[in-house]
Amino acid sequence: MVKADEYTLESVRESLIRQEDTIIFSLIERARFPLNSPTYERNYSSIPNFSGSLFDFILHQTEDIQAKTGRYMNPEENPYEEKLSPSIVSHYNFSQFLYPAAASININKKIRKVYFNNILPLFIAFGNDGNYAQTAANDLSILQAISKRIYYGKFVAETKFRKSQCEYEPLIRAKDRKALMNLLVDKRVEEIVLKRVEKKAMVFGEEVSIDSKIKGKYKVDPSIVYNLYNKWIIPMTKDIEVEYILRRLD
Amino acid sequence: MVKADEYTLESVRESLIRQEDTIIFSLIERARFPLNSPTYERNYSSIPNFSGSLFDFILHQTEDIQAKTGRYMNPEENPYEEKLSPSIVSHYNFSQFLYPAAASININKKIRKVYFNNILPLFIAFGNDGNYAQTAANDLSILQAISKRIYYGKFVAETKFRKSQCEYEPLIRAKDRKALMNLLVDKRVEEIVLKRVEKKAMVFGEEVSIDSKIKGKYKVDPSIVYNLYNKWIIPMTKDIEVEYILRRLD
Repeated sequence: MVKADEYTLESVRESLIRQEDTIIFSLIERARFPLNSPTYERNYSSIPNFSGSLFDFILHQTEDIQAKTGRYMNPEENPYEEKLSPSIVSHYNFSQFLYPAAASININKKIRKVYFNNILPLFIAFGNDGNYAQTAANDLSILQAISKRIYYGKFVAETKFRKSQCEYEPLIRAKDRKALMNLLVDKRVEEIVLKRVEKKAMVFGEEVSIDSKIKGKYKVDPSIVYNLYNKWIIPMTKDIEVEYILRRLD
Repeated sequence: MVKADEYTLESVRESLIRQEDTIIFSLIERARFPLNSPTYERNYSSIPNFSGSLFDFILHQTEDIQAKTGRYMNPEENPYEEKLSPSIVSHYNFSQFLYPAAASININKKIRKVYFNNILPLFIAFGNDGNYAQTAANDLSILQAISKRIYYGKFVAETKFRKSQCEYEPLIRAKDRKALMNLLVDKRVEEIVLKRVEKKAMVFGEEVSIDSKIKGKYKVDPSIVYNLYNKWIIPMTKDIEVEYILRRLD
């Protein structure tokens, strides 16, 4: 990806745009399966030395493999689990662009809760087809994609801070959350993001035939993707930006 | 998904069409990363009790979790690894549509070799960005999607056999591979598949902006997706169909 001085407001925005594709692809892929509620039932299966749902088990085991193989050495990646194995991969010189005292902000619990309570029920049909492992793997792909997008708010905030340090510093010292939010937010950009993700959901979710596209039938309702960004992803990203900025002078 | 008597030539084709999206999404997602050759170097990292590449490690560990959580109880799914943990998930009544003596045909080694030697070099840029865990996870997604597509040839063959048993039986007894291939293959359908996957690669791989699509710039070259199907996926699926049919009377 990018090295230290390559993080610019431009490059960060480009990454956010690319991440939209990943989020929408992963939603469309999850929608192949029905809800498959046994995936989320505590102790549905008897897993030795583990108390939790199949999803919890797959989340923990998968993040642990990814931790071992170095995924979370990249500051752009944040695991959901707290206790993971150390990396066994040779050192790679990832750029350390973020301000260390502010880099560790974490709202994983909230993201997870929002996904299962507010997002999943909107776009998944009821039913059970027995494909619990695939269901959980797809949930995890969505959670990883959303998490990366939201925590990218730290990179957004850092680029903005570096560009206008004099404007930010007095507001940080005054702990003026509201003024910081106003300074960080660009409503015009938000509107563009919302329109674009809705359009992407149409383009990626349509049935493509060789004669023409079958209009109006989507694998995930584009208005749901719009709302996912409008109600959850953008607000949580802004929260991360403000929390990050507030600690930027610690 | 579908139960025993719901597998029809129609439902099998619908699934194959849907699987095209999964394959193309996964290729586009892999293309976010450069080659990242350390992912594939034997003993690049020192993994205790494991001799192989990071990819081998992630493949084995991930398939093992998926095996534990029941993925391969579904006859539509085939793991690459041979020695995997048993499932700990409560029994789900997956349809047993395939003929048992023919169901176990396996060309995993070939699929793996083709992916790394012939497919990956075509659409991935050289380079190293340190994201080996993500790279391997994306490779595995592609391999799983391609594998499912190719082994779906068994379901294709079974539906065709059931529909025209009298035509197939003498050819199976005569072990007449060539005549069986001719009977199984539908060139017209193949042409449609090739055109459609090329079009899907265009639709899914375009830069989508809110004003218009940026034509002619794709995340994965559509002609590569065409060739992937034409040179590898369709021929390997047909091989599976013929091998399956040859054992259909065992």
